[in-house]
Amino acid sequence: MADKRFFRSEGPFSLAAIAAEVGAALQQTERGNMLVYDVAELCQAGERDLSVFSDVAHTAAFAGSRAAAIVTSARLSALPHGDCAILLCDDPRLVFAHIGRMFYPRVTTSKHHHNGAHVAADAVLGADVELAPGAVVEAGARIGARSRIGANAVIGAGVELGEDCTIGANCSISHALIGHHVTIAANTAIGGEGFGFAPTRTGMTKISQLGRVLIGNHVDIGNNVAVDRGSLGDTVIGDGTALDNLVHIAHNVRLGKGCVLAAQVGIAGSTTLGDYVMMGGHAAIKDHVVIGNHVRIAAKSGVIHNIPDGSVIGGLPAIPTREWHRQTATLARLARRKPSDGKN
Amino acid sequence: MADKRFFRSEGPFSLAAIAAEVGAALQQTERGNMLVYDVAELCQAGERDLSVFSDVAHTAAFAGSRAAAIVTSARLSALPHGDCAILLCDDPRLVFAHIGRMFYPRVTTSKHHHNGAHVAADAVLGADVELAPGAVVEAGARIGARSRIGANAVIGAGVELGEDCTIGANCSISHALIGHHVTIAANTAIGGEGFGFAPTRTGMTKISQLGRVLIGNHVDIGNNVAVDRGSLGDTVIGDGTALDNLVHIAHNVRLGKGCVLAAQVGIAGSTTLGDYVMMGGHAAIKDHVVIGNHVRIAAKSGVIHNIPDGSVIGGLPAIPTREWHRQTATLARLARRKPSDGKN
Amino acid sequence: MADKRFFRSEGPFSLAAIAAEVGAALQQTERGNMLVYDVAELCQAGERDLSVFSDVAHTAAFAGSRAAAIVTSARLSALPHGDCAILLCDDPRLVFAHIGRMFYPRVTTSKHHHNGAHVAADAVLGADVELAPGAVVEAGARIGARSRIGANAVIGAGVELGEDCTIGANCSISHALIGHHVTIAANTAIGGEGFGFAPTRTGMTKISQLGRVLIGNHVDIGNNVAVDRGSLGDTVIGDGTALDNLVHIAHNVRLGKGCVLAAQVGIAGSTTLGDYVMMGGHAAIKDHVVIGNHVRIAAKSGVIHNIPDGSVIGGLPAIPTREWHRQTATLARLARRKPSDGKN
Repeated sequence: MADKRFFRSEGPFSLAAIAAEVGAALQQTERGNMLVYDVAELCQAGERDLSVFSDVAHTAAFAGSRAAAIVTSARLSALPHGDCAILLCDDPRLVFAHIGRMFYPRVTTSKHHHNGAHVAADAVLGADVELAPGAVVEAGARIGARSRIGANAVIGAGVELGEDCTIGANCSISHALIGHHVTIAANTAIGGEGFGFAPTRTGMTKISQLGRVLIGNHVDIGNNVAVDRGSLGDTVIGDGTALDNLVHIAHNVRLGKGCVLAAQVGIAGSTTLGDYVMMGGHAAIKDHVVIGNHVRIAAKSGVIHNIPDGSVIGGLPAIPTREWHRQTATLARLARRKPSDGKN
Repeated sequence: MADKRFFRSEGPFSLAAIAAEVGAALQQTERGNMLVYDVAELCQAGERDLSVFSDVAHTAAFAGSRAAAIVTSARLSALPHGDCAILLCDDPRLVFAHIGRMFYPRVTTSKHHHNGAHVAADAVLGADVELAPGAVVEAGARIGARSRIGANAVIGAGVELGEDCTIGANCSISHALIGHHVTIAANTAIGGEGFGFAPTRTGMTKISQLGRVLIGNHVDIGNNVAVDRGSLGDTVIGDGTALDNLVHIAHNVRLGKGCVLAAQVGIAGSTTLGDYVMMGGHAAIKDHVVIGNHVRIAAKSGVIHNIPDGSVIGGLPAIPTREWHRQTATLARLARRKPSDGKN
Repeated sequence: MADKRFFRSEGPFSLAAIAAEVGAALQQTERGNMLVYDVAELCQAGERDLSVFSDVAHTAAFAGSRAAAIVTSARLSALPHGDCAILLCDDPRLVFAHIGRMFYPRVTTSKHHHNGAHVAADAVLGADVELAPGAVVEAGARIGARSRIGANAVIGAGVELGEDCTIGANCSISHALIGHHVTIAANTAIGGEGFGFAPTRTGMTKISQLGRVLIGNHVDIGNNVAVDRGSLGDTVIGDGTALDNLVHIAHNVRLGKGCVLAAQVGIAGSTTLGDYVMMGGHAAIKDHVVIGNHVRIAAKSGVIHNIPDGSVIGGLPAIPTREWHRQTATLARLARRKPSDGKN
């Protein structure tokens, strides 16, 4: 059901080809040659589409779906449904993500050919690099093979970008060394000066910001994000970490591998996150704090202390989630009493 | 008093012409031919300016104003004032907004003529479309009559934009179908990939984001906003809705008509807002939540449940405002007691 | 240790030259001719580098540093250390900031020469103005001597920019009069329409935004910031004020001198800040509020009342920090009790 104005399908594919590619088992083996033309939600899928059933909350939609084929688990497949083909697997949501990628690869064939881009004489472009109109590649920058620079994006002097990266329109990248398979969405600024000042008698003196931003492989960064470069050391973003829209990463912050930071999160200077940390939207962390591995931080929390591995925290200041909920309930209970209640 | 470097007045207008245009009654009918040259605040207006008196807090400024004419209500006009003309109406603030628009139409005459813009061969531009230098219109995009694209803005492949729209400088618009009379301020990103991942054993796999952003008519979007496209369905923004600066709208969110979201609001994935919802600055809503019509959400609140029509809520987690204030007062009272207080 | 791809050193300098320039005392006067080639952190500095010791927490790093010279205070210099030269001063952090600036001036020699920039015929450029590729300077704009406009930045019609300013890539500046030595980082939008509406029976009517943004001297603005212009009056940012990334400043806000606003702060319309106000990240202030001089507002706070000079506040709603902490402790204590506790 993807809009043909915006997405170009690589399909159709046969059910056998899909099952082989993603490691699922086609229950109706006799339908292996059946072609499916698109992916769609259960309730919107037509007779040529493939869909997914991964959540018992959608049992009614599963029962009524007209999809040609549905990806689901052995357990869920036992629920009532029409005469569709069933692709069995352990993790339907993940398998459906792979099938979506088969139909619609994230990196499409190159369409831009450097017309209207500004490339410095000593910049180095790998094979099949794509530069949209108005893109600017400054002195000494290096761009790896097959990477795509969006319209009016700016790759600053000396920046190194790996292979198979996608930089969105109107991004501004400077003072950064970036790995492979990195995606940065539109209007994001990487490598700006950190917010470091030394107080003087009459105000503030800006401290030189002489570090860099180091970004690993398979990193995913949203729209309108700001990642500052280090002051003397570097700001570091580990492999596989994902930042949603409007996130702020201050100078000298270090994010581990596989972290997931939701929209509008802010991390103050020199704070370190371990691996696989998850932060809800609008959460923030103080400067110079150390967060362990696998920590989960609730949306809108404010973290002001070091946090050990595996903690689940929330609130302002953030505390273990269980305590936070108990405090919320306690306050609600106390407020329901009349002040004139005597005992309280 | 508008700075001539930035604003070009359509005036002067006679008081009679203004009264007729906005449906106000000129008290001093003999002054209908008097010309006014500009709009200004009560305390700064000169003898050729028109001003507004809509708030009793400004009674002293009304008394002392040198304005040639003042828009006000019958009730407020009874307060002491100088020898100015009075334009009577029921809603002075709204009428003054209309007069401001008479003097300074929001869409000015076209000044840019496609010099330095990059337009794909198969893009379709309506009559009197204006493209500022560096604007990029990608393959298959369609732009309606009289719409204006700011300098270095990027209209992505296949985007459809209605008539009389204004897109600010350095905006990045993709995967979107946009109505008429829509204004999008500078540096805003519309149509980016939603933040959707399926967890794997070694991290996260990005889920294909195959939906669109659908924007109605008369929508107003601020600076540095991020609106993500849907994953399989669409992200929808209803007619007349307004988003302030730095707002985040995640994939598959649906905003009704006439909603007003203040700066830095964040709405997580698949959440639905009814019509005429108002959210204060820094407020946020969890994913997959349903907010009714005419709900009002206080600044900095965090909403985690469905909210019925007409509710007025605040706090973290958000609760009815009255309860929230009672909790705040209760905690303040309890904290004033000494811990050693015995009974408590 | 600064990466030569991104930073060009003006060094080396002799210790005597450095001491003279910044007003420090070289303890080992016989080493005045020794050259130092770079600045570095204590633990990373090599035998040709200069470092700083300003915090007793780094005593071990001071003892073990291989730096050629270290800036420190008389008191800290008494702690054990190797055979390095010592530069004594009262405020090592500030002096080190000045030395960093000696090695790496913030404004580097001009490298861009207007190739690929779009400049309106009646725009006025001072001596040695630098325009990167894709920069747009619209009708009637004036840019002071030695100012630098980044790639694809847009300087709107009539804007006036002082001398020695730096405007980052992809910035959008309109309706603004800006002083000297102002730095605005990438992707920031200055001068957008304020979020002002008059309610009508069927929704909202936009109020004309006819004011400007007035920015003083030595102002520092981060990435992806949004500063709206005034509606009838102006939005004002005082000398020496610094805004971090993703800050929102609404229409008609007035910020005094030397204010420091951390990332993601939001200030609603017509609110006034005195001089030297400090706000932590994610803090916000309601509209039409007056904040005194030297007020300090904790991160994530929400301010809803006028605040007198010198206050230190935090929380939501913000109250004196001491009270806020007492409330937090009180609630924690009460929540630890069992509800069935009888007395409570």
